[in-house]
Amino acid sequence: MAAGARHTGVEVRARHVIIAGRTRYENRMTDVFTHPWLGGLFGDPRTQELMSPERMLAHMLAVEAAYARALGDTGLVDPDIATQTADQIVAVTIDTDALRQGTASDGVVVPALVRSLRAALPKQGHAALHKGMTSQDVTDTATVLTLKPVCALFSERLQSLISVLTELKAVHGGNFLMGRTRMQAALPITVADRIDSWTRPLADHLDRLDQQKDRLLRLQLGGAVGTRHAMGGQGDEIATLMAQELGLNTASPCWHTDRSAMAEFTGWLSLVTGSLGKIGQDIALMAQQGINEIRLSGGGGSSAMPHKQNPVLAELLVTLARFNATLVPGMHHALVHEQERSGTAWALEWMILPQSAQATGRALTATAELLGQIQSLGARDQQG
Amino acid sequence: MAAGARHTGVEVRARHVIIAGRTRYENRMTDVFTHPWLGGLFGDPRTQELMSPERMLAHMLAVEAAYARALGDTGLVDPDIATQTADQIVAVTIDTDALRQGTASDGVVVPALVRSLRAALPKQGHAALHKGMTSQDVTDTATVLTLKPVCALFSERLQSLISVLTELKAVHGGNFLMGRTRMQAALPITVADRIDSWTRPLADHLDRLDQQKDRLLRLQLGGAVGTRHAMGGQGDEIATLMAQELGLNTASPCWHTDRSAMAEFTGWLSLVTGSLGKIGQDIALMAQQGINEIRLSGGGGSSAMPHKQNPVLAELLVTLARFNATLVPGMHHALVHEQERSGTAWALEWMILPQSAQATGRALTATAELLGQIQSLGARDQQG
Amino acid sequence: MAAGARHTGVEVRARHVIIAGRTRYENRMTDVFTHPWLGGLFGDPRTQELMSPERMLAHMLAVEAAYARALGDTGLVDPDIATQTADQIVAVTIDTDALRQGTASDGVVVPALVRSLRAALPKQGHAALHKGMTSQDVTDTATVLTLKPVCALFSERLQSLISVLTELKAVHGGNFLMGRTRMQAALPITVADRIDSWTRPLADHLDRLDQQKDRLLRLQLGGAVGTRHAMGGQGDEIATLMAQELGLNTASPCWHTDRSAMAEFTGWLSLVTGSLGKIGQDIALMAQQGINEIRLSGGGGSSAMPHKQNPVLAELLVTLARFNATLVPGMHHALVHEQERSGTAWALEWMILPQSAQATGRALTATAELLGQIQSLGARDQQG
Amino acid sequence: MAAGARHTGVEVRARHVIIAGRTRYENRMTDVFTHPWLGGLFGDPRTQELMSPERMLAHMLAVEAAYARALGDTGLVDPDIATQTADQIVAVTIDTDALRQGTASDGVVVPALVRSLRAALPKQGHAALHKGMTSQDVTDTATVLTLKPVCALFSERLQSLISVLTELKAVHGGNFLMGRTRMQAALPITVADRIDSWTRPLADHLDRLDQQKDRLLRLQLGGAVGTRHAMGGQGDEIATLMAQELGLNTASPCWHTDRSAMAEFTGWLSLVTGSLGKIGQDIALMAQQGINEIRLSGGGGSSAMPHKQNPVLAELLVTLARFNATLVPGMHHALVHEQERSGTAWALEWMILPQSAQATGRALTATAELLGQIQSLGARDQQG
Repeated sequence: MAAGARHTGVEVRARHVIIAGRTRYENRMTDVFTHPWLGGLFGDPRTQELMSPERMLAHMLAVEAAYARALGDTGLVDPDIATQTADQIVAVTIDTDALRQGTASDGVVVPALVRSLRAALPKQGHAALHKGMTSQDVTDTATVLTLKPVCALFSERLQSLISVLTELKAVHGGNFLMGRTRMQAALPITVADRIDSWTRPLADHLDRLDQQKDRLLRLQLGGAVGTRHAMGGQGDEIATLMAQELGLNTASPCWHTDRSAMAEFTGWLSLVTGSLGKIGQDIALMAQQGINEIRLSGGGGSSAMPHKQNPVLAELLVTLARFNATLVPGMHHALVHEQERSGTAWALEWMILPQSAQATGRALTATAELLGQIQSLGARDQQG
Repeated sequence: MAAGARHTGVEVRARHVIIAGRTRYENRMTDVFTHPWLGGLFGDPRTQELMSPERMLAHMLAVEAAYARALGDTGLVDPDIATQTADQIVAVTIDTDALRQGTASDGVVVPALVRSLRAALPKQGHAALHKGMTSQDVTDTATVLTLKPVCALFSERLQSLISVLTELKAVHGGNFLMGRTRMQAALPITVADRIDSWTRPLADHLDRLDQQKDRLLRLQLGGAVGTRHAMGGQGDEIATLMAQELGLNTASPCWHTDRSAMAEFTGWLSLVTGSLGKIGQDIALMAQQGINEIRLSGGGGSSAMPHKQNPVLAELLVTLARFNATLVPGMHHALVHEQERSGTAWALEWMILPQSAQATGRALTATAELLGQIQSLGARDQQG
Repeated sequence: MAAGARHTGVEVRARHVIIAGRTRYENRMTDVFTHPWLGGLFGDPRTQELMSPERMLAHMLAVEAAYARALGDTGLVDPDIATQTADQIVAVTIDTDALRQGTASDGVVVPALVRSLRAALPKQGHAALHKGMTSQDVTDTATVLTLKPVCALFSERLQSLISVLTELKAVHGGNFLMGRTRMQAALPITVADRIDSWTRPLADHLDRLDQQKDRLLRLQLGGAVGTRHAMGGQGDEIATLMAQELGLNTASPCWHTDRSAMAEFTGWLSLVTGSLGKIGQDIALMAQQGINEIRLSGGGGSSAMPHKQNPVLAELLVTLARFNATLVPGMHHALVHEQERSGTAWALEWMILPQSAQATGRALTATAELLGQIQSLGARDQQG
Repeated sequence: MAAGARHTGVEVRARHVIIAGRTRYENRMTDVFTHPWLGGLFGDPRTQELMSPERMLAHMLAVEAAYARALGDTGLVDPDIATQTADQIVAVTIDTDALRQGTASDGVVVPALVRSLRAALPKQGHAALHKGMTSQDVTDTATVLTLKPVCALFSERLQSLISVLTELKAVHGGNFLMGRTRMQAALPITVADRIDSWTRPLADHLDRLDQQKDRLLRLQLGGAVGTRHAMGGQGDEIATLMAQELGLNTASPCWHTDRSAMAEFTGWLSLVTGSLGKIGQDIALMAQQGINEIRLSGGGGSSAMPHKQNPVLAELLVTLARFNATLVPGMHHALVHEQERSGTAWALEWMILPQSAQATGRALTATAELLGQIQSLGARDQQG
């Protein structure tokens, strides 16, 4: 069987996952990203879709299916049964209420997911189902599958911002601004000078992302205690096959307890929002009456002062920068990951990484919107 | 008109708020509290309900209504029209899609809310609608109305935990544990000694909450720039009337830019989860094979090792403690709240305080569950 | 023996401590508070003196002496020997090189300190020396003795700042400023309005300090595992006597593992610097050319632009606010203090609390200096 | 004149700097790294020496000298005078008391340093002194010169730790440990498995350091507002010459406001301490009585319990990991660096980066010491 044939792609499969569950929580959301009205300011639908539970579930099923196929390819399970099981796994309808109850008692969703799959699959397929893997293999690999298109999206957005900044420079670059140091007028600069200082870090962030990708987008496969022992001596081959199918790197033997790549990536997310926050802060300062170095369309209204044009998106960029800066250390504390698996440190990552990615996604779209609102920038004549 | 008559209570009104909006986001939730399956582990339905957008909306309407009535009571608006307007305000059906769009452009929900109300109210009521207030008055007071029952709930839960610990001490207190310092066996102690060390900080936290309540549960009323200037010279009287109706303290003139009480309360939430995290850490250490000082029912299962009984809730307490510790500084950075209102610092609070409260709510329920799982604690005989 | 007679005061004794040690590190200091030149900007000599190692050592000796006396007063040791030993303890010359070596191996200074004392005292006094106490009793109580005058100093400085602000208001309060919300001109306010918003939180911080003092300034006395077991059944009486002598509250039995008061106090330090950071941020914004709402004397010079007058102290206040905000969570992570004593969590406090106090001390003096530099504030006429 | 001839090396010059100043602060140090006794536990003399004020001063002088030479080489100043001035600059005796006073008023040391140099140099050399540079050029480049040997040292130490771990594996690797997940016994593993999980992240950290070095070790040269305008049109050539002399990369035009590399490096420091903290946590858990999987020599003593052998260094590693995790966000907040230079954000870096480096230096030496204390690891026979 050709690798290509099965490689229909995780992203496609994600769309076919069927989630069934009666519990609805939409009026209970307190996070700003999906909140009924705050979501309008803080939400980035594209990042949300990439990081949605629906996708995450699809990715977990894709991992289980890839494992089943690999068991078949290595001959540990009858190849036909393995292929059949893999196909069935991704077609199962999952009851999220069962997952919810299972997560409540097990502290992780995978045991309940495997129970659901076992109940839905014919008995003969059970040998190809999860046997030898552990919850962390499934969850971490699914997370990495989620992060892969997020990296691509953010990379694309950074490149697009660089283009927009280049265009802005072409249009306004020759104008003058007062260069300010320590919030005091220093010497005149050009708009081009200021825009260059906004653009350079974004290019560096693309390099940083490229450099860490190999470490971040790694299959997780270790089995119960990270040793790949219960995989018939073929753990490394299984890992290679799975990584190939899922479009990931492999790591030998696993990174169950080495969370550095997750912390590094969260740090990168915060570097990005930090650089965008600097743009936001500069724009908010330029927009002050008395400074008047920028004119924006579409500023926010006030309930008390209809005359106001608030630089809402500029402020949002600073907020998102400080939010992400706040979150970073949580991932660093999670590096103290005791023994072969820390329930404590691992769950802390789940609380932090997704929202940091959401904040970054939104900062990137908000910057694009904000730059698009610029009507004028700097002055024709040098003042000072 | 009797104050009592109108004082049917914010909590009651909250139930009658009608939210209409077509956008559904439930499959996009990445926060662990309302997540389809992680919510089973991290969610606390009661806190969620208290902090739900539905409630928050009801509280904003209650603030607008209280203001309308106060305008009537002070004679700034015809009293009958004011009363009628107040009654209408709390009965209006609000389209959250409109709120969402408004928040996106204005950076705060109130202008859109006021537009919705204006569209729904008869023209003659417009004079009693919001005039003289500012967005921050409505949002902050509604937040405080949300926090009030949260404080009551957490206080009740802390008291209940103290009772449970007292009972545990009655049952197991005479047993022995090895006292451990620096993770090394030191000298034997009794279970009562250990339980006392868990209980004492909880009692102190109740004192801390009592001491800060007067500062936290304060009406916000300042108008456009915090001076109560556009309230016909009767700002202080209006504030007193509103505070009375809403069951809050008043502050003169306002705390638009002094966010200390919010930071203090978030710090308190983290003190609570820190003390509960200590209990969780102790229990996880006692549950180790080789130590065997506690026996728990209902431990979590493993997908790879069916024999395991994981102390999931004990670990969760440590996770929630570290999560809240991570969030606290965000609120402290928000203290640098420039000029008369910082969009930047204020929005940062919205991103942090609600999730910190959710985490604390869950830590309190998880501790109760965990203590209820204790089957045995310590040993009859002193070893060492 | 009269309690008064011995109550010559810890502060006095501190001056007589003699430190001998050959190792000098002054050219190795990287912390900004004592750094050869950065100390000029960041250092607050008075706080430094209160928190100096010399004082801390004096306080540890005072604790050992108080314990010796209490052993005598309770009859556990011959009263004359106890008194004599107590007097000798505070007169011993301590070699800090020995303390340094001991701390390196023991992880805490007290064992080496006790070894030094034992070597210096006559044999008969050994029974009154430390027996029944533990390192944490000495270190924590000495820390609290250090914090006591720090609280007094900061309280005094806050009161003094409130006076200065009141005077500023008397002089400039009638002038006008443009009220700014979201960094946009809103409506004119008076200088008095702005100064009031700076002053109110400082008054609240004094209340907060008063409320927590009883929790913070508590004797630590627990013995090896926090139970006061090795004190001949008279642990509570000893604690009462010591607390009386040292001017502290007592706590029953001890707070070895409940670090809430330390975290609460560090949070308070950051609330103070946050409120002062808001003043600094406002002043830096007012000092912008184009805004020109404040005139300061003594601004900082630039090596490239001699014409500049940088609002150095205003900026410093924001820096110190963000620094303290950064540190706070370290103390909250230290709440997860496992078992009877956590070497890990405890040492983290030593790394954080002292520098947070230094930063607060400096923010208080810098605010006083900055307010003293104000030459004009606001404009005679209302603009807008 | 040959580039090589002058390239006698910054490190050599550092030793010849003469600091004169009467103020002594050694008894006022509250930071744990240089503290009279805590320094024994927390201090790493080698890192301290590399980051000492003495070195930093030498580096600032080296930057001024390199600039003078470059002005000569580009013909902007008479080459002989330039060379002579450069030689004089590094030989001047600097009074740190003057630096201290200058820093207090200017917020940065360079104006005072330049005043000192100007007073010491013959008039004809003034044209080659600092003209066209700004304080940030000198300070940032000197910081980078300080970080360069720190990077080399930490890289060397990481490699050495990997060797030590490899040897430990050779000796003990065949022994058995109980693999533990969620702090519960899971399945037996070998000591080699555990040691591998400790070693892998260290190798990755070396890669991470290599990848960021080009971004971190960059000359800072921008002049007053970052544009290199006051350098006679030869700013880029001057930068190239200086970078060559100082052994740094160049960046065009400068990174005054892009602090990403500093934040990235601080994140890296915390990744390192996080991975070492995991080793420390594992060892502290293995050393528990009842677990007994490791035997260490030289454990710490207790003042109350002479029988104890505390795993002090293992605990220290966890403390240092949490300390560095705490500090990281300060550097991320400093990314919001407004306009052409933020006094606020920049000074925050000075407060954080040096202590984070100290903590990492110590974690590296402490890990080496701790691994050297291992007497036995794991058991000959598999238990389960």
